[in-house]
Amino acid sequence: MNRLKLIFCLSSLFLFSNLQAQNYIGKKKDINKILKNIEQFSKNYVDGNIKDLVDSYTLDGKIFPNRTKIIEGKQKLTEFWTPRNGSKTLRHKIMPSEIKIVKKTAYDFGYYEGTSQNAKGETFEFHGKYVIVWRKVKGEWKIYLDIWNSVDQ
Amino acid sequence: MNRLKLIFCLSSLFLFSNLQAQNYIGKKKDINKILKNIEQFSKNYVDGNIKDLVDSYTLDGKIFPNRTKIIEGKQKLTEFWTPRNGSKTLRHKIMPSEIKIVKKTAYDFGYYEGTSQNAKGETFEFHGKYVIVWRKVKGEWKIYLDIWNSVDQ
Repeated sequence: MNRLKLIFCLSSLFLFSNLQAQNYIGKKKDINKILKNIEQFSKNYVDGNIKDLVDSYTLDGKIFPNRTKIIEGKQKLTEFWTPRNGSKTLRHKIMPSEIKIVKKTAYDFGYYEGTSQNAKGETFEFHGKYVIVWRKVKGEWKIYLDIWNSVDQ
Repeated sequence: MNRLKLIFCLSSLFLFSNLQAQNYIGKKKDINKILKNIEQFSKNYVDGNIKDLVDSYTLDGKIFPNRTKIIEGKQKLTEFWTPRNGSKTLRHKIMPSEIKIVKKTAYDFGYYEGTSQNAKGETFEFHGKYVIVWRKVKGEWKIYLDIWNSVDQ
C-alpha cells in the first residue's frame, strides 16, 4: 500500500469511528468527569455502596421513578436505592447517547441495562432509557435530575 | 396597624408568596415563551392539532415513552401523538415546578395530569411527572428531549 492510500484509509477509519461515536459536546475534561461518574454510579450500585451512589446527586437532587412522585433528599434517595427483600443488582451498565455541557449545567441521555437477582436466586434482565440533568458544584459534576423508564425487548 | 407593622406584614406576605412560587430561573421573556409553549402543547393535544404539537419539537426532538426505545423524527412523533382506537384526550394540564434557562438550552420539570376517553365513552384520569430539555432555535423555544412516567394516586 502506498503512502497516499494509507492516509486515505486512516482518514476513512477516523471519519467512520467518529460517525459511530456518541455525541459528546463540551470540554473534554468535563465530559470525561461525567463519563467517569456514570461508570462509578453503576459500580456503586452493583457493589451496594449506596452512600457513595447517593453522594453522586446534588443535595437537592431529584429522582423520578415510575409510579411515584418526585423523590428528593439524601434520606429518601438512600431508601429508594437500597436493595429490598433480599434482592441485588448483579450487573448495571449505562450507555450515554449524548452529553452536552452548557456552562455549569449538562444534560445526558441514553440507555441502561442490567441484571437483578431476587431472594430466590432468580435473575432478571432489565432495559431502560434515561435523561439526566447534571450540575457542577464546587468543581464536581453531580446529578440534579434523574428520570428513566423501561424499554421492552 | 402602624406603618412598621404594615411593612412587616407586606414583606412577610411577599416572602411567603415567593417561597410558594414555582422556581423560574432565566430572563422573564424566555420563561414566558416556554410557559406559553407548555400551555399551547396541552391545548394542541386536546384539540387534536397534532401537526402543531409535533412542531413544538426540534427537528431532531426525541420522546421517551415508557416501554419503547427513544422515538425521533416528525413522522414517528406524529404517529405516537395521534390518538388511536377512537380515544381522545378531554383535558391535559402541565404544571412546571422549575424552569431554568442556560444560554440557548433550558430544562424544565414538573407534573402533568389529564382526562382521556376511550371509544366506549369511558373516561380515565392520568397523572405523571416529566423532564423536558428545551433548545432555542431561531428565536423559538423547542422541545429537544421529552421524558415522562406515571404517578400513582
